[in-house]
Amino acid sequence: MDYQSVIDKIRDEVRELWGQGRVADYIPALAKVDPRQFGIAVATLDGHEYSTGDAQVCFSIQSISKVFTLAMVTRHVGDDIWDAVGREPSGNPFNSLVQLEYEQGKPRNPFINAGALVVTDRLISLYPHPKDAMLEFVRSLCGNDDIYYDKEIARSERLNADRNMSLAYLMKSFGNIRNDVDTLLDVYCHQCAISMSCVDLARAFLFLSNRGVNPFSGKQVLSVSQAKRLGALMLTCGFYDESGDFAFRAGLPGKSGVGGGIAAYIPGNLAVTVWSPELNRHGNSLAGMAALEHFTTDIGNSIF
Amino acid sequence: MDYQSVIDKIRDEVRELWGQGRVADYIPALAKVDPRQFGIAVATLDGHEYSTGDAQVCFSIQSISKVFTLAMVTRHVGDDIWDAVGREPSGNPFNSLVQLEYEQGKPRNPFINAGALVVTDRLISLYPHPKDAMLEFVRSLCGNDDIYYDKEIARSERLNADRNMSLAYLMKSFGNIRNDVDTLLDVYCHQCAISMSCVDLARAFLFLSNRGVNPFSGKQVLSVSQAKRLGALMLTCGFYDESGDFAFRAGLPGKSGVGGGIAAYIPGNLAVTVWSPELNRHGNSLAGMAALEHFTTDIGNSIF
Amino acid sequence: MDYQSVIDKIRDEVRELWGQGRVADYIPALAKVDPRQFGIAVATLDGHEYSTGDAQVCFSIQSISKVFTLAMVTRHVGDDIWDAVGREPSGNPFNSLVQLEYEQGKPRNPFINAGALVVTDRLISLYPHPKDAMLEFVRSLCGNDDIYYDKEIARSERLNADRNMSLAYLMKSFGNIRNDVDTLLDVYCHQCAISMSCVDLARAFLFLSNRGVNPFSGKQVLSVSQAKRLGALMLTCGFYDESGDFAFRAGLPGKSGVGGGIAAYIPGNLAVTVWSPELNRHGNSLAGMAALEHFTTDIGNSIF
Amino acid sequence: MDYQSVIDKIRDEVRELWGQGRVADYIPALAKVDPRQFGIAVATLDGHEYSTGDAQVCFSIQSISKVFTLAMVTRHVGDDIWDAVGREPSGNPFNSLVQLEYEQGKPRNPFINAGALVVTDRLISLYPHPKDAMLEFVRSLCGNDDIYYDKEIARSERLNADRNMSLAYLMKSFGNIRNDVDTLLDVYCHQCAISMSCVDLARAFLFLSNRGVNPFSGKQVLSVSQAKRLGALMLTCGFYDESGDFAFRAGLPGKSGVGGGIAAYIPGNLAVTVWSPELNRHGNSLAGMAALEHFTTDIGNSIF
Repeated sequence: MDYQSVIDKIRDEVRELWGQGRVADYIPALAKVDPRQFGIAVATLDGHEYSTGDAQVCFSIQSISKVFTLAMVTRHVGDDIWDAVGREPSGNPFNSLVQLEYEQGKPRNPFINAGALVVTDRLISLYPHPKDAMLEFVRSLCGNDDIYYDKEIARSERLNADRNMSLAYLMKSFGNIRNDVDTLLDVYCHQCAISMSCVDLARAFLFLSNRGVNPFSGKQVLSVSQAKRLGALMLTCGFYDESGDFAFRAGLPGKSGVGGGIAAYIPGNLAVTVWSPELNRHGNSLAGMAALEHFTTDIGNSIF
Repeated sequence: MDYQSVIDKIRDEVRELWGQGRVADYIPALAKVDPRQFGIAVATLDGHEYSTGDAQVCFSIQSISKVFTLAMVTRHVGDDIWDAVGREPSGNPFNSLVQLEYEQGKPRNPFINAGALVVTDRLISLYPHPKDAMLEFVRSLCGNDDIYYDKEIARSERLNADRNMSLAYLMKSFGNIRNDVDTLLDVYCHQCAISMSCVDLARAFLFLSNRGVNPFSGKQVLSVSQAKRLGALMLTCGFYDESGDFAFRAGLPGKSGVGGGIAAYIPGNLAVTVWSPELNRHGNSLAGMAALEHFTTDIGNSIF
Repeated sequence: MDYQSVIDKIRDEVRELWGQGRVADYIPALAKVDPRQFGIAVATLDGHEYSTGDAQVCFSIQSISKVFTLAMVTRHVGDDIWDAVGREPSGNPFNSLVQLEYEQGKPRNPFINAGALVVTDRLISLYPHPKDAMLEFVRSLCGNDDIYYDKEIARSERLNADRNMSLAYLMKSFGNIRNDVDTLLDVYCHQCAISMSCVDLARAFLFLSNRGVNPFSGKQVLSVSQAKRLGALMLTCGFYDESGDFAFRAGLPGKSGVGGGIAAYIPGNLAVTVWSPELNRHGNSLAGMAALEHFTTDIGNSIF
Repeated sequence: MDYQSVIDKIRDEVRELWGQGRVADYIPALAKVDPRQFGIAVATLDGHEYSTGDAQVCFSIQSISKVFTLAMVTRHVGDDIWDAVGREPSGNPFNSLVQLEYEQGKPRNPFINAGALVVTDRLISLYPHPKDAMLEFVRSLCGNDDIYYDKEIARSERLNADRNMSLAYLMKSFGNIRNDVDTLLDVYCHQCAISMSCVDLARAFLFLSNRGVNPFSGKQVLSVSQAKRLGALMLTCGFYDESGDFAFRAGLPGKSGVGGGIAAYIPGNLAVTVWSPELNRHGNSLAGMAALEHFTTDIGNSIF
């Protein structure tokens, strides 16, 4: 498969979408990103890499980090995490409090903000230095020691975290947050501020298409079953209130972030990542969603 | 009207309800109150007072304080407060987040917790020493300088305020809280911990049946219109999710608190207060609700 | 009190509101009413009547009829009706299904559409000829045998009753509707289509301010307690999602209809009715709401 | 792969679940099914078939029929159907009215009852004889002319359809149902009453794993893209409020029915069906869900 031609063509096609979305502006540090950027990268299990556009530019991975923290927690506690977080699509906008209250402080799934806060809370209990541990985990996945937090974004997130504070205190009132809320928000705002490029991110997702084994180190990061299940969660819950639509149109397990990044993969085959800062009304990258739909159509391959 | 006979008879009748409710146990300091207590007091505009049972015992007035803070704020800002808080019954359990999110951080009314937090937030902006000001206000209403905060209860409230913290941060995320959330919760937990007896409370509510004029000092606390409107709010919203039922059964404007107190009044006539710690499933005093229904039936007088 | 001057002045003042509301247009027969009409009538317990404007023009009383059917049912079954219908304000738009589903088919109160359907269902079980019985009841209340259904409106209602059909079937699925749904809707659409003038309606509401006794015939229509409780229900639930606001501003028990009519009363004193077809966004008569607020302010009398 | 051994082993293992679920009892005709039955069938694209247990017993396919009607409608109207029905998981119990009202009569997806009613409504508009057309379509898919409606179940469904009547009228009030509601319910109750065995059903689902081509007739039933998208919908929405969990545990696109049947498939490989009448609390076959989880684990194959 000539992936390079496919992604070059996509890069040209999605330019027509520029200007139709809006860069995330809930924090100043994100709002100032130049909107007209697009990168795409493919990493295959047989060792090839393809990229085009702004694929080497680092961006804030935001909610894509939820996949990494969930992997870090499940490898230690296994299925116990599901006592505290559900596995069902939320059917509501991504930070809704309604469901959370109705279900007594148990978030619907680990990819809505409430669920990710619970996962990070458990991660804090498991690792003495959670912020160091997260960087180390991501670096090992993509084989690049040059991954850092964007400190300005982390700070800006923390200053605008009223809603996440509200979620955390609500869950604490139900007994589902164990650590101090201020500490929790500090770690959470850092995980959102991990800065990576499409190329890094494609490498970091390859272990998921490789049945849980890091293809660079050969280490089993997750069991086969855990890796498959993480994929199922991404497919049903990875794109906020647009998860069903993305499954329908692109047919891949993946996860998006409001920084404009999306990481996805085809089991047994490849990982593919895109980045373009303008978001659609659901908070997903406008050009990124279109690019991945084109990608699976052009290569004639999805999980369905 | 022989009010003394009426309330003595009620005191005897409601004893049969003892053991059918539950003392509030969400904070340890409230949970340890002896449940089998009942006091009732009547203060009339023509200067008489009647009381029986434990009417001189001080208890935590809890949400009844919301009437005092609302009076303190409306006398300064008038109808401007209604830009920030609604005036409709909530139709939901008293601390529900659903409505609050749906209506973009504007609470339905000033007597649900979220609405009271907004009122207290404005009070903090208006008074340099809000905790002193609240005590002073209540003391002047009942003509008793011996009203204090129960410091143990205030502390216990503050340690168990996760849900109210969640509400406050949620409203702050919508821009409807102006002061620091920690300061807000400190003041709010104190107002709930004001300690008064039925006799004090009956005096303190008399200004509402007196068209806004403090009958002891002769001072106009609220305008005639403001006093009437505060009464309407109490009638429609004063008893959480049981407001309609209380209007139906007792037919009086009033306000209850989870400490087991209820303060009510008949315009142009009298104020009547009851206290009994056991609550029904709506969080209102079980014996207190029954006592006020008996009271309006026995005296053949309500607002309807 | 010079009621005539008061209502003449109000009639002149509310003209400035014309054009700011919208006539109900969910059925063609209502939509064609001339919007620029306003009538107001007062009937006092001491036997005087005052009216001005279009107070003799007949209009469709719509939801005001819910007061009559509830009176007809409660006088027969007493408090048993409250097993099937609640007494709390709804806190939601007037025909919402959410609350109904959440509470297993038991409507929040008898003045939302779902609750009124349950009341009418019981009325059908009680009266062999429910449509005749309703007319007879209303005629006896106002001492006017010349009250009829507007057949065109009844027909138009029935043809546009999909939502009420949905409500009725939902409640039937929970076992809270006993009669055939088509029969129920036929009777319900007729009760909404009762045609009365402000003058008729003021007379028909006088029994409520007279402790349940029809002042024309001297007959006890409802017990004293039943009449008071009907008033409490009107105060807390009579104006859809604007009930709290109307209590706050006008301070009277009352009931509105989407035909633009409002009937209200002061216990022990008088009944007052207004009609003006343009509605505000809550479905209540725009000029009518303002008129009643002016009325209680001008006469210096409300229930608070 | 020795599918016969796999399914024989599963048949023995799931017996221990008997008695832990409950047969659907909302209609008498379903309630009387013998609960202790279990069948499983596999049909592969290379032409083999395997089955065990009660795989030849006909049962009521209920909601599995929603896949067939959706296929019948999309092949004619294509993506136009998505103007009337959404593609997102519902996040709520399967017949909730809340979402439907909130989203103005547009159901979240075609597999909740409301969405299926819209699809059937469009089918009625497309086919002059919809009930004949449905049978014909299913017969052609599985190459068996001996498929019929269970008339007793269809009748029983129709007599207990109050809730679906409510859904249909609600959507009609929003303009999203075009045909007469009684006709709609008649057709809908018939589609639910299609009677098939596991063996029939496995054959009938093979076209979905075959990129939309009926493997028996060679005819293209759906385009490649339509077939893939139908699979994505099943994966995200096929199991009511347990869709995420089924994707997580079994990792297959599929659809369940309250008759106790489940049909699923692996793209490019096989279709697998199970039937066991006892349901779990989400309305899915208890033994059926477990059987499919065992199946994908034992054969080491799912879509992830």
